[in-house]
Amino acid sequence: MSASDHVSPNHDFAPLKNDRLLRALRFESIDTTPVWMMRQAGRYLPEYKATRAEAGDFMSLCKDTDRATEVTLQPLRRFDLDAAILFSDILTIPDAMGLGLYFETGEGPKFERQVRTQADVDNLPVLDVNDSLDYVMRAVTSIRHALNGQVPLFGFSGSPWTLATYMIEGGSSKDYRYTKGMLYSQPELLHELLDKLATAVTDYLDAQIIAGAQIVQIFDSWGGALGHRQFIEFSHFYNKRIVSELKLRHPDIPVVLFTKGGGLWLDVQADSEADVLGLDWTMPLDRARQVLTESQRQLTKHYKKIQGSKAIQGNLDPSTLYASPQKIRDEVKFMLDSAYASGNKTGYIANLGHGITQWVNPDHAKVFIDAVHDYKI
Amino acid sequence: MSASDHVSPNHDFAPLKNDRLLRALRFESIDTTPVWMMRQAGRYLPEYKATRAEAGDFMSLCKDTDRATEVTLQPLRRFDLDAAILFSDILTIPDAMGLGLYFETGEGPKFERQVRTQADVDNLPVLDVNDSLDYVMRAVTSIRHALNGQVPLFGFSGSPWTLATYMIEGGSSKDYRYTKGMLYSQPELLHELLDKLATAVTDYLDAQIIAGAQIVQIFDSWGGALGHRQFIEFSHFYNKRIVSELKLRHPDIPVVLFTKGGGLWLDVQADSEADVLGLDWTMPLDRARQVLTESQRQLTKHYKKIQGSKAIQGNLDPSTLYASPQKIRDEVKFMLDSAYASGNKTGYIANLGHGITQWVNPDHAKVFIDAVHDYKI
Repeated sequence: MSASDHVSPNHDFAPLKNDRLLRALRFESIDTTPVWMMRQAGRYLPEYKATRAEAGDFMSLCKDTDRATEVTLQPLRRFDLDAAILFSDILTIPDAMGLGLYFETGEGPKFERQVRTQADVDNLPVLDVNDSLDYVMRAVTSIRHALNGQVPLFGFSGSPWTLATYMIEGGSSKDYRYTKGMLYSQPELLHELLDKLATAVTDYLDAQIIAGAQIVQIFDSWGGALGHRQFIEFSHFYNKRIVSELKLRHPDIPVVLFTKGGGLWLDVQADSEADVLGLDWTMPLDRARQVLTESQRQLTKHYKKIQGSKAIQGNLDPSTLYASPQKIRDEVKFMLDSAYASGNKTGYIANLGHGITQWVNPDHAKVFIDAVHDYKI
Repeated sequence: MSASDHVSPNHDFAPLKNDRLLRALRFESIDTTPVWMMRQAGRYLPEYKATRAEAGDFMSLCKDTDRATEVTLQPLRRFDLDAAILFSDILTIPDAMGLGLYFETGEGPKFERQVRTQADVDNLPVLDVNDSLDYVMRAVTSIRHALNGQVPLFGFSGSPWTLATYMIEGGSSKDYRYTKGMLYSQPELLHELLDKLATAVTDYLDAQIIAGAQIVQIFDSWGGALGHRQFIEFSHFYNKRIVSELKLRHPDIPVVLFTKGGGLWLDVQADSEADVLGLDWTMPLDRARQVLTESQRQLTKHYKKIQGSKAIQGNLDPSTLYASPQKIRDEVKFMLDSAYASGNKTGYIANLGHGITQWVNPDHAKVFIDAVHDYKI
């Protein structure tokens, strides 16, 4: 049963007041550039740390509807952000599959059980996301109500490839020893795992949309670790399938696809129904726009339906926020000049190229956001 | 005093028997594709582990001329390799500058002292590399004699940017917090450090060449962490300077420039006197060749002197060696087909896209090397 088969809750959400981000990704005219920050609800904010301390550990905070709502809204009280994003973790799906997610201080996420054999893959349950991940849907609906139409709400998930790396390694990895071992030695087994994950991710994002998410982002955080053909086969293939299925179920909900280190493969990712491609800081935005324009031209030869242009999102190095306010403004100006170098003054969402780090001064985040809005397009 | 001012030792080295690698990078005709492996003398070999155990810790092995010679030659006894590479570490320069390099099991390299302030940078000594790094030059000469002309010997160094990240962070890093902080907040200070390092790297490679290295490689292991403009300013600028200076001192010694994660910036790196650009597995070799051909065309517009074509080196994902022999052969065939897709059957050195890992079965390394040689060009 897919999440869509559930009776859709009869939400009574307030109308959206700030649709700048949605207009930009549809290439409609905008008054100024929309901006948000990956990991904008996080440890760089003292108020986040206070709420987190009340909740206990990280997953307890994710599962506490009121506090998850509170931390989601905290950055919007400080900054003039054009979107909110569900407070959660990319590893909720493998946790719900029974792998036992836990966090060790300074060590990143870990799983009590790894997925390395045929039996391990076979034993993974098919999730009823509205049951095992109900806390996420409750948080989405609660946040959407609390936003009261202020800005659109992002739902999100890790990509199948990224989730698989954590599940196979049992946590973070530098060299993806076991995952790549499976990829090269037992590609069919890895495909079985990715297939299960793609189904789960699709249902998970579907359920978030039904619960109130107005846009969703797929975080392919470790896609950049793959070779070119392997990226197509083991990462993009599944991302593309998820996006297509979501578009069937929810044609009007935009999808953002973000592959960290994926600058070389924008032409690959262009071949998907994603509305927006996210970029890290290694790829200049003017070059990204050129690549996507050319890809679109090529793709329209192959598809009967004209492919829509992809909007782009990103890509300030989060470390830029360690710099002085003037330096941050200079870098933002350069980024926006690049984003709009083609002359088309829309189709772009300002963001960092990766999550904001815990060491950033919140006042510097404000400088970034205000500099984006102050830029005359 | 530069290393060149030393009286060059009156070596009496045997003539080179296998010049396949040198011919390939000069775009001369070759009988088959030359191949070597980054980190080919390493922990995946039981004989390496035995010698390492005799020597004690890693740096003791580097400083032990006989044992450093022994481990350099070990992979050449097992495999039909077309080059040897000095056994050493990329962090010898900061160690010689007094930062106190040490290795913690499973933790990677660390420094007892970090370089984070103006005083820290000011206090770094100008190295007399033939004094403080004499053990490296002794190893080079010893290895060159022991090779007896079998294959050419690589010398190497870390790039200034890569060395700087270790010196500033005090070890490995996931997010380069302090290095990027300095880059964005105190770029002049970072430039002072990089300038000192560029001088030291130049003298270091110069001295290795004088001691017997027949080709040198600059490992820009963390260049890929930078943004596009930052890569040009803080990494490539110094690599280019080092290569130019080496070419003045030793016009006939080839230089390989390897930026991990640098596939997006091949056009940038083309603007250097490097003979070879190394690639990791994210960049397809046929595309790399196309980019370099176009870059060469553009560069000849700007320079009076026609820029020579860059050879390419790489780029098999080391994790491929976890796969079956047949799979390894399939991947090698694909790689070589891509390398020679332009129709020019030279100008390419087969290698991994990064160092071989400690978990590879040596028999699989042999499959890789033999598959390269068995490929009919």
